[in-house]
Amino acid sequence: MSDKIGTGNFFEDFQLGQVIEHATPRTVTEGDVALYCALYGSRFAVQSGDSFAMDIGYEAAPIDDLLVFHVVFGKSVPDISLNAVANLGYANGRMVAPVYAGDTLTARSEVIGLKENSNGKNGVVYVHTVGENQKGEIVADFVRWVMVNKKDPANPAPEAVVPELPKSVTAEHLAAPTDLNMKEYNFTLAGSPYVWEDYETGEKIDHVDGFTVEEAEHALATRLYQNTARVHFNQHTEKDGRFGKRIVYGGHVISICRSITFNGLGNAFKIAAINGGRHVSPIFAGNTVYAWTEVLDKMEVPGHPGIGALRLRTVGLKDQNAEGFPYKDEEGKYDPAVVLDFDYTILMPRKV
Amino acid sequence: MSDKIGTGNFFEDFQLGQVIEHATPRTVTEGDVALYCALYGSRFAVQSGDSFAMDIGYEAAPIDDLLVFHVVFGKSVPDISLNAVANLGYANGRMVAPVYAGDTLTARSEVIGLKENSNGKNGVVYVHTVGENQKGEIVADFVRWVMVNKKDPANPAPEAVVPELPKSVTAEHLAAPTDLNMKEYNFTLAGSPYVWEDYETGEKIDHVDGFTVEEAEHALATRLYQNTARVHFNQHTEKDGRFGKRIVYGGHVISICRSITFNGLGNAFKIAAINGGRHVSPIFAGNTVYAWTEVLDKMEVPGHPGIGALRLRTVGLKDQNAEGFPYKDEEGKYDPAVVLDFDYTILMPRKV
Amino acid sequence: MSDKIGTGNFFEDFQLGQVIEHATPRTVTEGDVALYCALYGSRFAVQSGDSFAMDIGYEAAPIDDLLVFHVVFGKSVPDISLNAVANLGYANGRMVAPVYAGDTLTARSEVIGLKENSNGKNGVVYVHTVGENQKGEIVADFVRWVMVNKKDPANPAPEAVVPELPKSVTAEHLAAPTDLNMKEYNFTLAGSPYVWEDYETGEKIDHVDGFTVEEAEHALATRLYQNTARVHFNQHTEKDGRFGKRIVYGGHVISICRSITFNGLGNAFKIAAINGGRHVSPIFAGNTVYAWTEVLDKMEVPGHPGIGALRLRTVGLKDQNAEGFPYKDEEGKYDPAVVLDFDYTILMPRKV
Repeated sequence: MSDKIGTGNFFEDFQLGQVIEHATPRTVTEGDVALYCALYGSRFAVQSGDSFAMDIGYEAAPIDDLLVFHVVFGKSVPDISLNAVANLGYANGRMVAPVYAGDTLTARSEVIGLKENSNGKNGVVYVHTVGENQKGEIVADFVRWVMVNKKDPANPAPEAVVPELPKSVTAEHLAAPTDLNMKEYNFTLAGSPYVWEDYETGEKIDHVDGFTVEEAEHALATRLYQNTARVHFNQHTEKDGRFGKRIVYGGHVISICRSITFNGLGNAFKIAAINGGRHVSPIFAGNTVYAWTEVLDKMEVPGHPGIGALRLRTVGLKDQNAEGFPYKDEEGKYDPAVVLDFDYTILMPRKV
Repeated sequence: MSDKIGTGNFFEDFQLGQVIEHATPRTVTEGDVALYCALYGSRFAVQSGDSFAMDIGYEAAPIDDLLVFHVVFGKSVPDISLNAVANLGYANGRMVAPVYAGDTLTARSEVIGLKENSNGKNGVVYVHTVGENQKGEIVADFVRWVMVNKKDPANPAPEAVVPELPKSVTAEHLAAPTDLNMKEYNFTLAGSPYVWEDYETGEKIDHVDGFTVEEAEHALATRLYQNTARVHFNQHTEKDGRFGKRIVYGGHVISICRSITFNGLGNAFKIAAINGGRHVSPIFAGNTVYAWTEVLDKMEVPGHPGIGALRLRTVGLKDQNAEGFPYKDEEGKYDPAVVLDFDYTILMPRKV
Repeated sequence: MSDKIGTGNFFEDFQLGQVIEHATPRTVTEGDVALYCALYGSRFAVQSGDSFAMDIGYEAAPIDDLLVFHVVFGKSVPDISLNAVANLGYANGRMVAPVYAGDTLTARSEVIGLKENSNGKNGVVYVHTVGENQKGEIVADFVRWVMVNKKDPANPAPEAVVPELPKSVTAEHLAAPTDLNMKEYNFTLAGSPYVWEDYETGEKIDHVDGFTVEEAEHALATRLYQNTARVHFNQHTEKDGRFGKRIVYGGHVISICRSITFNGLGNAFKIAAINGGRHVSPIFAGNTVYAWTEVLDKMEVPGHPGIGALRLRTVGLKDQNAEGFPYKDEEGKYDPAVVLDFDYTILMPRKV
């Protein structure tokens, strides 16, 4: 193989404290917004209509938080997870400065933890990934950990360091947009009358709708994010792989679920935090995704009297509707229909 | 079901004179224009090239009239037709102010007619839907009527009111763009030498080309319009539905046919009116769409000496080319290949 | 058939020296850039990030050279190759002025050669196609030759004229962008440390990655370029055609290969010339494309000390990875896996 070919990092290539600047600055534009709409049919008014967003104090309709997340995440793939055996988890994800069409995003990751597995063949790498705009403002940051193969099992194990991570982003760490004037939030145009006060901890919502995934759709999406993970694109190798077919990028499933949650959470106008997420089982073209949500917690947002936060668990299902809220059995084993277990925090207008 | 889930309106929910503001303002951008081009391959020069459009007096290339129509229509779906048994018809549709990239569209509908069916189970709702830009200018308006289920057949029938509707939009009601300088219209760049004077009432044109529809394409299109009708997206339920597969949004078929008509109607630079339309039978992924057109009428446009109007019937066909102009038999029954019967009025330059 | 239907030109319709202005001016936008990214996942930093491009002296991220090429090429199809039996070759292609979002492209072709085949049924037409922006600056030009059917074999043959064409564009004819400040080129953000000096004539690179083509993807791409060649869109006729299925536009394969070459040629920031190209065999939906590249030549670029040029041959393969660099056998016959033999010249930063 040519030495000019990037083959990604192996477990031994990572060192604690190492900072990796990821390649390919990406200007996010109205073109991306339109494609994101075509891919997921999202209907949250703040991200859809400039005039709506400007009425409550944004410069324009901000780019969807998950589009930003996917772009930042995609940049990290060639350096962090090209040789990943498994994406194990996310934590402490925060969506910070709003991103507008025309902003250019870059990303870097710091290695904050390393732990070789007892089999000596691979280990877990923890990284803190930060996405920035062209002004150097943080737009998103998150921790993720992946299991990565070693190049040579004979190489010695590094000292094990496992970072302490919060179970969820607390209210004071939420990057709520400042200066929003929620009195101008138009509930009719937003498509839902329900405010923060209307939701209760423990409440569950079956979002009813289902979307069938097509091969061309998830491949378009994943390339849009410049995500290079090979399992999503190459049927010639995947036909002989673990599943015999291409695997849909997990972030595509998150975005489908977010779009489905509009029906029931229409005023969840911003994802402020990603507390954790697990891709329980893979999705393939032809599967239909459904979703239900449980309200895990309600939080006031310090300094933002017009906005409340809801910590949510959205569960994605495949080929089964959300009736009865399929999740885990008594032993903690996931229902076979569950594909996504996503713990995140959204912002919502409060009662005026 | 959670009371926060929108389930759409039933027949009893509509009242005569009721005005419904539809949700989700939508900024239409150059991203939508690119996607529309990728979906339909449209080649009308006014909508494709800024410099061409500006030469004849537009501010820039206006957004395709059908893209505007689909966005406005899409907004009305969750309120008007989510529980529709059938989309029965359109009338009196007018494309008014040009829409440019950056404009934000909203829509509202007024209930202008109600008639319960004799079976007591459903009824016909007539609405006048108006789309506006962020300046409050009307960009499109149309009447449509749908058959909607009752929640409870025991509920009493409203007084039957059926609006009087014009068979077609007359010349004086056409919203022809003012201040166009058709002397600067470049027929070479437009790709056709034929002007309004070259077409005759009764003339039929076989547009020759055919486009095969893919599942990912119509789903991308329909989500781009934020149209939430479930039959287009959910194979898991549709496999047990009436056809065993997802139904292509009728507006997608209209846009395919419009694109196909370029070959023969290359200077039909604007759709000014939608007089009526019938989706005669459903289209599915894998079908190939063909089209032919009959000139129904020719009209001068008052106050616009450089522009003439043609009232057209474009007939869409599936899996059969347009040779012999398949339409109706002697008893008025549609040929089995016909999928669309679309009556609309376009504008065309006149001989200088 | 209506006389208003464009049926393309036949061999007899072309005259030496004839200049054909092609239809449909096309404003290229950020929407096209996003779609191009979604279609090919391209990661060359200059085209992806405004700030990166501006740092080295561009006004903004320029539109991908191949997107410009496909748009210009697409305009020529209805006039030049609608009745083509075969696309025989390209030569002397140059990408000249950078194209930015908002530019409107038009194209014209001059007939520079004609040679009837001895069978009397068809002949070869050579055209020089020029694409321009709204300011009249040339953005791309190239020669291509196609075999076109005669309307009537009885028609007399024109005098045979075959233009002399360079085997490749020489360094002094490369339209290298002036005023670039390559000292500001950030190799970390570009994703590759390798500069012009690191490549050697004769060096071969297996680009490793493979992309599977979907029906919806190539159709979206080809319509985006407003390319009207029917074999790409109409399964209803193609099912009875030579291959039983739709043929993928050759330019789509070129763009896939270019994207794949990022891994190994990450700093090939501009395609400056297309020296020649052959679509060795057709690609269909479901095929997986791989690519390898040989460095054919290295050239200094007069007046641009910071930039070097590499003449490359990129070979596209279907359903076979590039191990062993499959190409031609001893008799010059292509390996059955080869689909594309593309000879082009890229620009790369030199060692500072």
